[in-house]
Amino acid sequence: MSEPHVLVLGGGFAGLWCTRALASAPVRITVVDRTNHHLFQPLLYQVATAGLSAPDIAAPLRHILRRQRNVTVRMDEVQRIDTGARRVQCAGGELAYDFLVVATGATHAYFGNDAWATHAPGLKTLDDALAIRRRLLSAFEAAEREPDPAARAAWLNFVVIGGGPTGVELAGTLAEIARHTLPREFRHADPRSARVHLVEAGPRPLATMPQELSEKTRAMLQRLGVEVHTGRPVTAIDADGVAIGDERLPARTVLWAAGVAASPLGAQLGVATDRAGRVPVEADLSLPGRPEVFVAGDLAAVRDAGRDRAVPGVAPAAKQMGAHVAAVIRARLRGTPSAAFRYRDFGNLATIGRMAAVVDFGRLRLSGLLAWWFWLVAHLFFLIGFRNRLIVLLNWGWSYWTYQRHARIISGRPPPD
Amino acid sequence: MSEPHVLVLGGGFAGLWCTRALASAPVRITVVDRTNHHLFQPLLYQVATAGLSAPDIAAPLRHILRRQRNVTVRMDEVQRIDTGARRVQCAGGELAYDFLVVATGATHAYFGNDAWATHAPGLKTLDDALAIRRRLLSAFEAAEREPDPAARAAWLNFVVIGGGPTGVELAGTLAEIARHTLPREFRHADPRSARVHLVEAGPRPLATMPQELSEKTRAMLQRLGVEVHTGRPVTAIDADGVAIGDERLPARTVLWAAGVAASPLGAQLGVATDRAGRVPVEADLSLPGRPEVFVAGDLAAVRDAGRDRAVPGVAPAAKQMGAHVAAVIRARLRGTPSAAFRYRDFGNLATIGRMAAVVDFGRLRLSGLLAWWFWLVAHLFFLIGFRNRLIVLLNWGWSYWTYQRHARIISGRPPPD
Repeated sequence: MSEPHVLVLGGGFAGLWCTRALASAPVRITVVDRTNHHLFQPLLYQVATAGLSAPDIAAPLRHILRRQRNVTVRMDEVQRIDTGARRVQCAGGELAYDFLVVATGATHAYFGNDAWATHAPGLKTLDDALAIRRRLLSAFEAAEREPDPAARAAWLNFVVIGGGPTGVELAGTLAEIARHTLPREFRHADPRSARVHLVEAGPRPLATMPQELSEKTRAMLQRLGVEVHTGRPVTAIDADGVAIGDERLPARTVLWAAGVAASPLGAQLGVATDRAGRVPVEADLSLPGRPEVFVAGDLAAVRDAGRDRAVPGVAPAAKQMGAHVAAVIRARLRGTPSAAFRYRDFGNLATIGRMAAVVDFGRLRLSGLLAWWFWLVAHLFFLIGFRNRLIVLLNWGWSYWTYQRHARIISGRPPPD
Repeated sequence: MSEPHVLVLGGGFAGLWCTRALASAPVRITVVDRTNHHLFQPLLYQVATAGLSAPDIAAPLRHILRRQRNVTVRMDEVQRIDTGARRVQCAGGELAYDFLVVATGATHAYFGNDAWATHAPGLKTLDDALAIRRRLLSAFEAAEREPDPAARAAWLNFVVIGGGPTGVELAGTLAEIARHTLPREFRHADPRSARVHLVEAGPRPLATMPQELSEKTRAMLQRLGVEVHTGRPVTAIDADGVAIGDERLPARTVLWAAGVAASPLGAQLGVATDRAGRVPVEADLSLPGRPEVFVAGDLAAVRDAGRDRAVPGVAPAAKQMGAHVAAVIRARLRGTPSAAFRYRDFGNLATIGRMAAVVDFGRLRLSGLLAWWFWLVAHLFFLIGFRNRLIVLLNWGWSYWTYQRHARIISGRPPPD
């Protein structure tokens, strides 16, 4: 085969959208991902909180791409990128490329406090979500077994660290589970006595939203039963709880939603990364000095020229970058000049809990029930696959009417600690 | 509380049916299970073969029993039973009882060849099913990566050991996946070239069925593409395959469905267990010499007086035993004599694959499409919960029309080997 080989690392939004946009291009494409699935990350917190099953929000990459004949999907782990030799070393073999698209995303980061990882797991992969589900559900089970009231209370205290969208979603849902889903099912512990803390180092939750919506978010969280702590960073995390400033929050269950760092593969591309490990790219998303290498999605540090800020690490931005890289590759093959990437910001939405969300469309700002409906419809629309949409819709409807969460199954081995 | 305390160990069919049948009895009940869910084991193979999600066939025990006010559900691990002191030691504390119902079921057994467990995982729990799903799906991924044809073929060879219902279901479904679900999605490996072997030491598959249905099962398996080997036991299993007699079947993926042994707790009850570890019980299912202790479900060795054979280890028998134990406890509390357990055999069904099953109602015997419909309806009917029935029905319909299996997600950590 003499067609140029496009090697796409990562089957997330950026990698998948790039691959799809090359469907009719005269290239052969290999998509490498260490999992076998594309994950709809915006709903990952619902797997962590037992509202959805893992397969509801994930689909095998090779199934999604089965009809695109110029694509090979390879489940493999990337070990080393050699941009000089144009080769990528994977655990299962070496791959040469003509064009490389690095779209390996981000992972959660503890900012130098790696010891916190044991006590405060983060949420980026399906396995993370299933581990968090196991911890949350097991905490209520441990409380039910525990005869000592103080020890029982510690099992019913939950701390979510980080007031971004994931932290807000986790805290809001957890409060709903404790207040509405579980109460009648326990005989010794009372889930309604559970305390859910949300800790944000900055002054307000959802800091990327307008001030007005942040304050509405805080009010909605409090109405759901979440205790919101802002303005003080976490200074310690151990098996018994969290310290914020001088205050100590005792809790056996702590979740980390406070920060992400870009994939470590970014450091192998030969340019200095920013503080979050992201790779600064040219206006067309190519690597400085390496026009055949592109970086897209959460791994790319891109300026949003229109609004003088960084392009945010959200799904729509990743999809747009992926599609843009595909357009640049097609332009190169035709010998025409490539355009600069421009981020089209369609708005910003975040959900908080039952009938509570915020939506920012610039001039139009919504909160509460209407925003929640908008959030539901948008997420259903962007899910991949008719079947997933139908199943998620059914699960949401069922959860709404019954207050139940169907995936309340404790599975998997507990961590080795 | 002065009401007698009934301690039920195990939330499977026997334990759950016993608990429910005591709903209006003047007792308080504690159900202990090491998982948080009741599992509909007859459909477990569908989780292992990616047709259903784990939460589709499992429901939290405390949710099922939430309205039964005389029940406490406790997720805990039983460590020691002291029938003399009428106490049970769990990992999370000690429990005293007035009546004890031991219904901890069975696990897969390797008959002294425990080293085989690494290479040939068995299927008894949800975690087993998810581990098998990971192995099966990963084998096709490894084949796709593998450049060497011989090594690739080894990844596409599958051996299922044991020709009972579980082995037949696994082999038939695996052949269907290889032939119908996956083919268009791979570029290098051809899933249609996969070979699926079913190995049974005895003379025929489904040995508990009439000879005629066994032979039909063999024919249906062969039509689905399964190579059926009978009459020779497995003599060795390693990472590269299986030896049966002088023949060697090379395969990287081997599944174990060849035998079960009763829960090791049976050995703590002070009576000699049979070769499979089951506990011989009195006619009313109580322990010899310990009328306040009962054994029910797969752990009990019970004669089926009507047909002069052992009561089989199937779900209907476990439910009947559980309900019988409840009736005996109620009779004891009233001071009336307790009846002997009689197994009502409503028939025997097993599914083989798409539109292929066998049903034995004694005089009426069915095979093929009609039996398959019967199997579908019966399993849907016996599933617990309206939501699970609806979701399973939708998943089955979708799989039937599209040949797809929605839970094709590789998750969880691979085994440490």
